[in-house]
Amino acid sequence: MVKNTYMRWRLPLVCLLWEAAMIVLFGVFVRFDPEADAHWKEEQRQKNLTSDIENDFYFRYPSFQDVHVMIFVGFGFLMTFLQRYGFGAVGFNFLLAAFGIQWALLMQGWFHSFENGKILIGVENLINADFCVGSVCIAFGAILGKTSPVQLLILTLFQVTLFAVNEYILISLLHVKDAGGSMTIHTFGAYFGLTVTRILYRPNLEQSKDKQGSVYHSDLFAMIGTLYLWMYWPSFNSAVSNHGDAQHRAAINTYCSLASCVLTTVAFSSLLQKKGKLDMVHIQNATLAGGVAVGTGAEMMLTPYGSLIVGFLCGIVSTVGFVYLMPFLESKLHIQDTCGIHNLHAMPGFIGGIVGAVTAAAATEEVYGKEGLISAFDFTGDYKDRTPSVQGGFQAAGIFVSLAMALAGGAIVGAILKMPFLGDPADENCFEDDVYWEVPEDEESGLYHMHDPTLKPVTS
Amino acid sequence: MVKNTYMRWRLPLVCLLWEAAMIVLFGVFVRFDPEADAHWKEEQRQKNLTSDIENDFYFRYPSFQDVHVMIFVGFGFLMTFLQRYGFGAVGFNFLLAAFGIQWALLMQGWFHSFENGKILIGVENLINADFCVGSVCIAFGAILGKTSPVQLLILTLFQVTLFAVNEYILISLLHVKDAGGSMTIHTFGAYFGLTVTRILYRPNLEQSKDKQGSVYHSDLFAMIGTLYLWMYWPSFNSAVSNHGDAQHRAAINTYCSLASCVLTTVAFSSLLQKKGKLDMVHIQNATLAGGVAVGTGAEMMLTPYGSLIVGFLCGIVSTVGFVYLMPFLESKLHIQDTCGIHNLHAMPGFIGGIVGAVTAAAATEEVYGKEGLISAFDFTGDYKDRTPSVQGGFQAAGIFVSLAMALAGGAIVGAILKMPFLGDPADENCFEDDVYWEVPEDEESGLYHMHDPTLKPVTS
Amino acid sequence: MVKNTYMRWRLPLVCLLWEAAMIVLFGVFVRFDPEADAHWKEEQRQKNLTSDIENDFYFRYPSFQDVHVMIFVGFGFLMTFLQRYGFGAVGFNFLLAAFGIQWALLMQGWFHSFENGKILIGVENLINADFCVGSVCIAFGAILGKTSPVQLLILTLFQVTLFAVNEYILISLLHVKDAGGSMTIHTFGAYFGLTVTRILYRPNLEQSKDKQGSVYHSDLFAMIGTLYLWMYWPSFNSAVSNHGDAQHRAAINTYCSLASCVLTTVAFSSLLQKKGKLDMVHIQNATLAGGVAVGTGAEMMLTPYGSLIVGFLCGIVSTVGFVYLMPFLESKLHIQDTCGIHNLHAMPGFIGGIVGAVTAAAATEEVYGKEGLISAFDFTGDYKDRTPSVQGGFQAAGIFVSLAMALAGGAIVGAILKMPFLGDPADENCFEDDVYWEVPEDEESGLYHMHDPTLKPVTS
Repeated sequence: MVKNTYMRWRLPLVCLLWEAAMIVLFGVFVRFDPEADAHWKEEQRQKNLTSDIENDFYFRYPSFQDVHVMIFVGFGFLMTFLQRYGFGAVGFNFLLAAFGIQWALLMQGWFHSFENGKILIGVENLINADFCVGSVCIAFGAILGKTSPVQLLILTLFQVTLFAVNEYILISLLHVKDAGGSMTIHTFGAYFGLTVTRILYRPNLEQSKDKQGSVYHSDLFAMIGTLYLWMYWPSFNSAVSNHGDAQHRAAINTYCSLASCVLTTVAFSSLLQKKGKLDMVHIQNATLAGGVAVGTGAEMMLTPYGSLIVGFLCGIVSTVGFVYLMPFLESKLHIQDTCGIHNLHAMPGFIGGIVGAVTAAAATEEVYGKEGLISAFDFTGDYKDRTPSVQGGFQAAGIFVSLAMALAGGAIVGAILKMPFLGDPADENCFEDDVYWEVPEDEESGLYHMHDPTLKPVTS
Repeated sequence: MVKNTYMRWRLPLVCLLWEAAMIVLFGVFVRFDPEADAHWKEEQRQKNLTSDIENDFYFRYPSFQDVHVMIFVGFGFLMTFLQRYGFGAVGFNFLLAAFGIQWALLMQGWFHSFENGKILIGVENLINADFCVGSVCIAFGAILGKTSPVQLLILTLFQVTLFAVNEYILISLLHVKDAGGSMTIHTFGAYFGLTVTRILYRPNLEQSKDKQGSVYHSDLFAMIGTLYLWMYWPSFNSAVSNHGDAQHRAAINTYCSLASCVLTTVAFSSLLQKKGKLDMVHIQNATLAGGVAVGTGAEMMLTPYGSLIVGFLCGIVSTVGFVYLMPFLESKLHIQDTCGIHNLHAMPGFIGGIVGAVTAAAATEEVYGKEGLISAFDFTGDYKDRTPSVQGGFQAAGIFVSLAMALAGGAIVGAILKMPFLGDPADENCFEDDVYWEVPEDEESGLYHMHDPTLKPVTS
Repeated sequence: MVKNTYMRWRLPLVCLLWEAAMIVLFGVFVRFDPEADAHWKEEQRQKNLTSDIENDFYFRYPSFQDVHVMIFVGFGFLMTFLQRYGFGAVGFNFLLAAFGIQWALLMQGWFHSFENGKILIGVENLINADFCVGSVCIAFGAILGKTSPVQLLILTLFQVTLFAVNEYILISLLHVKDAGGSMTIHTFGAYFGLTVTRILYRPNLEQSKDKQGSVYHSDLFAMIGTLYLWMYWPSFNSAVSNHGDAQHRAAINTYCSLASCVLTTVAFSSLLQKKGKLDMVHIQNATLAGGVAVGTGAEMMLTPYGSLIVGFLCGIVSTVGFVYLMPFLESKLHIQDTCGIHNLHAMPGFIGGIVGAVTAAAATEEVYGKEGLISAFDFTGDYKDRTPSVQGGFQAAGIFVSLAMALAGGAIVGAILKMPFLGDPADENCFEDDVYWEVPEDEESGLYHMHDPTLKPVTS
């Protein structure tokens, strides 16, 4: 049966109505945080701040920009590895992230920055909105090439909502620490996306198998995404940590974990290929697992060598996942995971949650100092009597709450996305920009193959 | 008639003589700003600055680097969409910007940082020099592929000069606020470039029509430029704002406007194409209009929802411009605008000027606070009695001054560029790197088409 | 004779063993610097630091991230210009840098941050580790396409070790200033790499001559590397300078030198080509020489016009080097320098050392101020009586020490890399990703030529 992928009325309608809704909601609820408000000059005097440099903007803006690059260029280009889905990878990621950050500012605002009827936003809110959208970009990786832009916007609407709820449960109710989001971003985002793609299972997807491979230059474009994610991950994991030593420490731990991860990825990529050759898919993805896996622990006293160990293991786990687990998941569990987010985000995210729980449980006054321990885990107010071991327990609980939210949420949203009129492509048109984009006809793009069926790329 | 595009003596001569002139002028005039001078340690004690972190370097350097990336990678790669003009796009943009920032440091220095015969430069001057060059990169977009490097250097020399004069009139004489340059950078730069390309009108340009399209990967290269411009625009609009809340606010407003702009661009790109498919040209350009249009207002209390509204409208205006206005401008007004700067910079820049004027006129002590209002609009010294409504009037005047300077200046400079011996390409060689660059002959580049005329890309 | 390039056991073994060694050594030696340690809160009170913003993290982290981008994206993509070695360029650079930074943290730590048996690391150590690896990336440029990943890891192990020793001699024993590394990074790295490639001389390399050229899009990928190196070089040269004016000044001087360098590069690229056309190889490389050449002097009072002069000369020297010196070095001295590091790093680095020595020798209290002079050259403790002219002498000595270390070290390491079982490719397989990577077969990559020998790219 031929699918109707005509977007002309559906896509504009969703974009315009939803953006109009954003304007109304922002008008009613969103205002500037005091540090971004013109009254700040007076604020400052009252707070006896010695200098403008005390404005949170200067503590977090550079990290914000790095995170911003990770979301739009990092995730966007990482997904351009497909030979003829580059426009969709970068373009749809751009679209869903641009909508997602607005909706996230509202959802997270209601839960975390709501004061006398207003959401007060500053640079930290912008970072958290990017984080929230990051989990959607992760889920997008699982269904890449198989959905319409309308489906992606609906996915974003619901996933951002559930993300905010889950985050609220973890951060506010369980008082869990998760600055780099191993649980809230990666575990949640990945298992959510995997559930969605399971629901959207396409038995005859092999009809577009020839388009699931990369071409030489599409692999180089993907490396742009990989490297920006890899380089800026220290900013990602430290962006919303406490000022001072916590941000400093989070960056160092992440830097170490990522470095170590690259070596084990290369080792196993070569080891698991009979000719001993390296596979770009592993280099593009598994090298990042180290950053995912210290998302919770990086701001704690994980220590540089602890980080190296985490990176060491995750490079192995992730690469092995690509080689052995992924085919199994597809054939047995019918999980068609285009980008292999199970290897890059799901498993390392889960490990990251455990690493965080253990590190928290092992915290002592000797290692952190009296004040250090209190500020690191915010053992104040209602939580002033919580001990590290108890904290560890709550951290562990956070993993499973995230997992449950992801599976339940993914199942529901997946079902919603199955609705017939959302314009998803036919099996033979998956991984094909031509469906939703005006594509220049040139011998350079994969489209060429349609003109000359004798030239088919080997799919990796 | 065959054109002489032989650059061997003309280009080196211009580059070497002008660079030598820069050295002499820098030697006579340019010195370090006190905060970059080795005497600063003493300065500091006299000023009772508590810490090195008070150095302006730490307030502005991260934003400077983002702006720097926008000028060289952002504009450079945005223009690589042409199938066989990638070297010219990135390379000539690199050349003119590298010369332009030096000349801008001098011109802007004489007008704004001239003290007892010396121009004292610090990080803020570097940002302003990049801004000035940004207006040249914009103008370059209109004549992309149709001029020689010598013509581009001459264009840069004159445009930077006129930019500095116009900026002086607006900032110093009219006391206008324009931190993100909706007027000084975008309105001026775009109308200047459009006038120049009008003067350089080529009636037979259709002879190179087949090269005006993109190829699959050239569109992906262009997206690198688009995304860096989009992501770093908050830094652009906040880079030279007052320390503290103003920089913070400018970044938030720009972030919001850009996010909203993406959705309306996607909506109209699909809506205005009969098959409902998205057009890369719109995604690459119109998504940025939101940043242009808050260039003046971002540092004011435009508020997040105000920014969303501006972005919403500009995404529509810009996309509609690409579809309907551009063909009209070319056929009726003989304005051949290669990159469509009229849609991305001219109209949004003009709107941005108006948004700024209205926002200024609407400013109240209630919204800004007494001190806040004074510092936001610098109502001090000669201007201590100026009211917001009067300020709004001057802001509006600034738009038209910029417009007048652009049209008059563009006409003159366009006439200068028509001089026969500057080495511009023949109509059939436009949009062709082969004219000024050694190009590797490979089936990958558009050049391939010359070997096999049966393969012609569809021009968008 | 056929070479055995089978990596399946050798590469994994080296990666896993060495990474395991890193974990052990980090476990024994590496801890957090006080500013990254959870005890900092108490530290702070004792030091009466008024604010968290005093943490070194906020002085150096933005520069660190820029340097990080230069090492991984800058060097990585700069080397993708080869038509079919993009995976190796980006991928092997990624691998060696990821290992190198870990080993550098240890080596530099033992020499510079070793306190009561522990190496205490903070953001400045991360920057220095990146710097150290930068010298390995430079050396990699000379042997690009001719070595196996195992050889590259061995190269990294030894070069990082020698780098740390040389750096110790210069910085700690000779008390030389070299914040941007003209001597320690560029002179050392380049001459080291040139010596290695001389030892590994391949008389029959012309067998892979057809692969040494670029293709259209590989040149555009390389420009990504070029531009990020060019834009972020001011961060590179200022990253580890003293807080305040020194960092500020270093950025300005580098910005000026680089701008000037672009114009003379363009001038000579056109001048030295009979058709007057620009050569991408020059634009990609020689434009960066200005940054290399102010690596030592940038933080001194070199002044903006002094920087312009340095950039002016180095653009010429570097471009002339590519046109005349490189062929000579290959034919007469048997130095096969794939990326032309002699032109971009060796000569400009050497010049940079001299510029630094002269600038130091010329320093006066009048120009620096009493305090300024002392802090600029750290004339304290054992060195409180050292005069600028003496400092200049030591600076000059530093150049030759670096040179000697590079030549001797390169000779030894080159000999080690000649060992037969390291898996280097045969002459006809050099510059070919297919040897060590799974490469998608598509008409887009240079590989295409193998299927259709009638299509050969012109090698530049």
